[in-house]
Amino acid sequence: MGINKKSLVRYIELTKPELSNNSADAERLKDALKKELKTEHISIPLFLAASLPEKLRKWEHRVKCVIFKELNFWSVAAIRDPEENETLCGVAADIGTTRVVLQLLDLETGEVINERGFDNPQAAIAPDVLARIHYAGKNSGAGLKELHSPALFPGAGMGIHGNSGSAGLKELQSLIINGINANILALCKESSIDPAMVYLFSGAGNTAMTHLFLGLDPLYIIREPYIPAVNAPEPVNAGELGLLINPGAKVFLFPNVGSYFGGDLMAGIFYSGLHKKENPCLMVDVGTNAEVVVGNRDWLMACAGAAGPALEGGVSDMGMTAGPGVIDRVKIDPETRKIDIHTIDEKPAIGICGSGMIDLAAELFLSGMLDIRGKFSKKRCESRLFEKRGVDCFRLVDKAETGTGDDIFLSQVDMNSLTSSKAAMHSILEVIVNQTAGLDFDELERFYVAGTFGSFINPQSAISIGMLPDMPLEKFEVLGNSSLKGAAKLLLDSSAFKEIEGIRDGITYIELNVNQEFMNIFSGAKFYPHTDRSRFPSVKLYYDET
Amino acid sequence: MGINKKSLVRYIELTKPELSNNSADAERLKDALKKELKTEHISIPLFLAASLPEKLRKWEHRVKCVIFKELNFWSVAAIRDPEENETLCGVAADIGTTRVVLQLLDLETGEVINERGFDNPQAAIAPDVLARIHYAGKNSGAGLKELHSPALFPGAGMGIHGNSGSAGLKELQSLIINGINANILALCKESSIDPAMVYLFSGAGNTAMTHLFLGLDPLYIIREPYIPAVNAPEPVNAGELGLLINPGAKVFLFPNVGSYFGGDLMAGIFYSGLHKKENPCLMVDVGTNAEVVVGNRDWLMACAGAAGPALEGGVSDMGMTAGPGVIDRVKIDPETRKIDIHTIDEKPAIGICGSGMIDLAAELFLSGMLDIRGKFSKKRCESRLFEKRGVDCFRLVDKAETGTGDDIFLSQVDMNSLTSSKAAMHSILEVIVNQTAGLDFDELERFYVAGTFGSFINPQSAISIGMLPDMPLEKFEVLGNSSLKGAAKLLLDSSAFKEIEGIRDGITYIELNVNQEFMNIFSGAKFYPHTDRSRFPSVKLYYDET
Repeated sequence: MGINKKSLVRYIELTKPELSNNSADAERLKDALKKELKTEHISIPLFLAASLPEKLRKWEHRVKCVIFKELNFWSVAAIRDPEENETLCGVAADIGTTRVVLQLLDLETGEVINERGFDNPQAAIAPDVLARIHYAGKNSGAGLKELHSPALFPGAGMGIHGNSGSAGLKELQSLIINGINANILALCKESSIDPAMVYLFSGAGNTAMTHLFLGLDPLYIIREPYIPAVNAPEPVNAGELGLLINPGAKVFLFPNVGSYFGGDLMAGIFYSGLHKKENPCLMVDVGTNAEVVVGNRDWLMACAGAAGPALEGGVSDMGMTAGPGVIDRVKIDPETRKIDIHTIDEKPAIGICGSGMIDLAAELFLSGMLDIRGKFSKKRCESRLFEKRGVDCFRLVDKAETGTGDDIFLSQVDMNSLTSSKAAMHSILEVIVNQTAGLDFDELERFYVAGTFGSFINPQSAISIGMLPDMPLEKFEVLGNSSLKGAAKLLLDSSAFKEIEGIRDGITYIELNVNQEFMNIFSGAKFYPHTDRSRFPSVKLYYDET
Repeated sequence: MGINKKSLVRYIELTKPELSNNSADAERLKDALKKELKTEHISIPLFLAASLPEKLRKWEHRVKCVIFKELNFWSVAAIRDPEENETLCGVAADIGTTRVVLQLLDLETGEVINERGFDNPQAAIAPDVLARIHYAGKNSGAGLKELHSPALFPGAGMGIHGNSGSAGLKELQSLIINGINANILALCKESSIDPAMVYLFSGAGNTAMTHLFLGLDPLYIIREPYIPAVNAPEPVNAGELGLLINPGAKVFLFPNVGSYFGGDLMAGIFYSGLHKKENPCLMVDVGTNAEVVVGNRDWLMACAGAAGPALEGGVSDMGMTAGPGVIDRVKIDPETRKIDIHTIDEKPAIGICGSGMIDLAAELFLSGMLDIRGKFSKKRCESRLFEKRGVDCFRLVDKAETGTGDDIFLSQVDMNSLTSSKAAMHSILEVIVNQTAGLDFDELERFYVAGTFGSFINPQSAISIGMLPDMPLEKFEVLGNSSLKGAAKLLLDSSAFKEIEGIRDGITYIELNVNQEFMNIFSGAKFYPHTDRSRFPSVKLYYDET
């Protein structure tokens, strides 16, 4: 108790009031916290200072405080009885476009008390960020309900801040806030925790999701020159946002570096510790957009570019996101060309997800069924190949064995999409690592794969198709839900704020210039694994025809 | 427009967003304000940042901001169209125990648009601070109505902050907040100003009134060792307090130095400029409590002590506060001993106020009708002296000429009270100036008389009775309602915050030790003007019998 000097919960002993030491209660608490935190400025909100005299005397001038860093000062989120045996909680949130995951944590022990994921309710309005931002600009929401406390838009009631957020934006904000509220309440109920004991909330999302969560106008994120309303949102009180935790709880959202490099990636960098490494490391979040950061404790460079939806299973007719019956792993015996598929929950196959596609492409290529241009080999695919509306198609699972009653197949068009995506991914890596940072891939000490989608990818397969560079497998580290893990880490570490500020201030965002040079790089990367085979010495084909 | 570099309204031009300068809107406004204010940290509240993108583009990246200093950063209270011809307002408040005075100001021009005073509605509960503080400790208010927005006590609704303010405290807070609201609305209506255009509120009151206004537990102010809840309240939003101005308006209360040296005096020091003088100066607030500060730009010492209610007309049967028919000035012809009285509004006399009492005592003494011990002289008072219940009484106005139909008279007991009060006042001055600061009164460059009551005193009379030191009259400066004037000055001067911080940090509060030594000083000061006549060379008696 009170031993963890990094905890956001601190046990504080105040000087006792005397005629010779008669400064006010709030100032004596501030003085004690200044010493404890080695800082100059402490803020105690009015509602906590109001009842301080009675509490201090009842608790004999000892308190337990939940502390939080704001702008350039520390603030107090809770003042509690140090003798009370109660669990002070925080909630960490990965606020994804598609899925939201929450963790309820014990702020003192760091224990994850409970976890819960749910689909982002904004999907009912639009599945993707672009459509949601367009919707946010509209002033009539279909089923809009005013769910916000007036505190967030203090002017609204008096009609003087003018148009402080369109109806569309408010509706989207309500959906995510209400969704999070329902799930926090469920988490708390399951764990017999009073939601009022949640004093901190830490969230990480991409730039658009951060805007929609906070009710910030997102319209200019998607218009050139791509300007967010806010890069580093200041912490706000939960009550202002309508979050149903302690109304004085502090809500922190990870800052973004720009419209296309958001708080989710900042949380990932923070979680990976890349920014503290001596040797250069790289972190990539693989998805429809590929976001990359490379650097070490001295410098950080970031860029982002479109990789296309193929990697997330969003292009082919058979493509889908992970779920029961979805093919997530593929193995092909190069000799017999027998295909082994694995489905999630081992249910009959109904489709294939992005990581399954990467596995499939890798195995097809290694066994000679896909040529170096990414075309199905008629010679080796044999009866699995058929033609549909003039396009070659590859039958992966016969309808007799699927869960749908139909064949599961990939067309050459689907495969071409994957080829473009993997080439884009590789090109972005090449541009930032080789061209911008001036490094060889060999010089990277670690290669972090961030994000939930990334955690399903088999790095060996990604190397085989030339999507990821040919590095020793032990250098790859799959971070999992690094957004959630970064958000959770913040709640347990008082040095986190300074670290995150350092990352944000230290990062140089490189605008990806899609010029002729980039197109040349991209063209080379469209081959399997690459036109320059010497870059992928570990990739051995069963039939090597080069 | 925008020329006044001290104004809290600033015209700001932002850099335009470009691909090569694509930081977020809020950050670009912060950068521009950092340059303008030469500061490191700017806070833009969420509700203002939310609508920034649309505003910036509509106004071509130029804005008019109302700025305000908080803890260790500047915050933005309003972001307005720089081309709009509108009056951005502030309200300054003297929050007195008895009377409250408000000023509505134009933040850009500094013009006082309107002013209004009203009796503190808390007087309906109790006339004085002590009784109000006792009442604040009670948990049942007589006619308590819940008038606060829940934002102030966010825990209340969820029952987790426990007893966040008693019913008695909330009732007292409601009374003052509602009283101020009603009068701000009236001020605005009279001046055709939308209350939502009031973006700043600056208030000065004694420590107890500051606590009752903010809803801070005041109970320990009056219990040894006299500890306020807060010395320097952090600015809060008007919406949190339920003030009916712009809900995002910043509310500033002058800090106190201790339970007996409040924000009203801090405002007085700030207004007088004493803290910037090269040579030592003194400021005194004369009243039931005498508060004194002495110092210059290098050092400041303060003390406070009870002077008794006599100076404010609160002791004698005939004593009363200023009002029509109240005697406020007295003149006696030492030769004829004819008494000339002046009443407020020149109505028939109904009583006498504190400044009238000081005048009367001075004139009686100078004309020999009061001896050096402060006793009525039988020889010179002649027929004006009569006895009532064994006590000498002095008839000031015959019943034939009063507005009450009764004589207006002062008893020897009343006169003794005045003697004690003037002696206490002088003793406090002597202790802090001579004994603590080690100065002669002659060394003071200026002698400021603060507070509304002080502005009615005739300094010459106060010297004659030995209440104030015998200094050249031109050194005395009556400040008037220095509390209000200080509050108003803050709203027009961006350097004020640093100055006030400097005063607060630089002031040394001297606990007045009422020991044998003090009693010796007090005994000497009970004579008219003093046992040591050499201290009052200018006081010439008509009959000098010493």
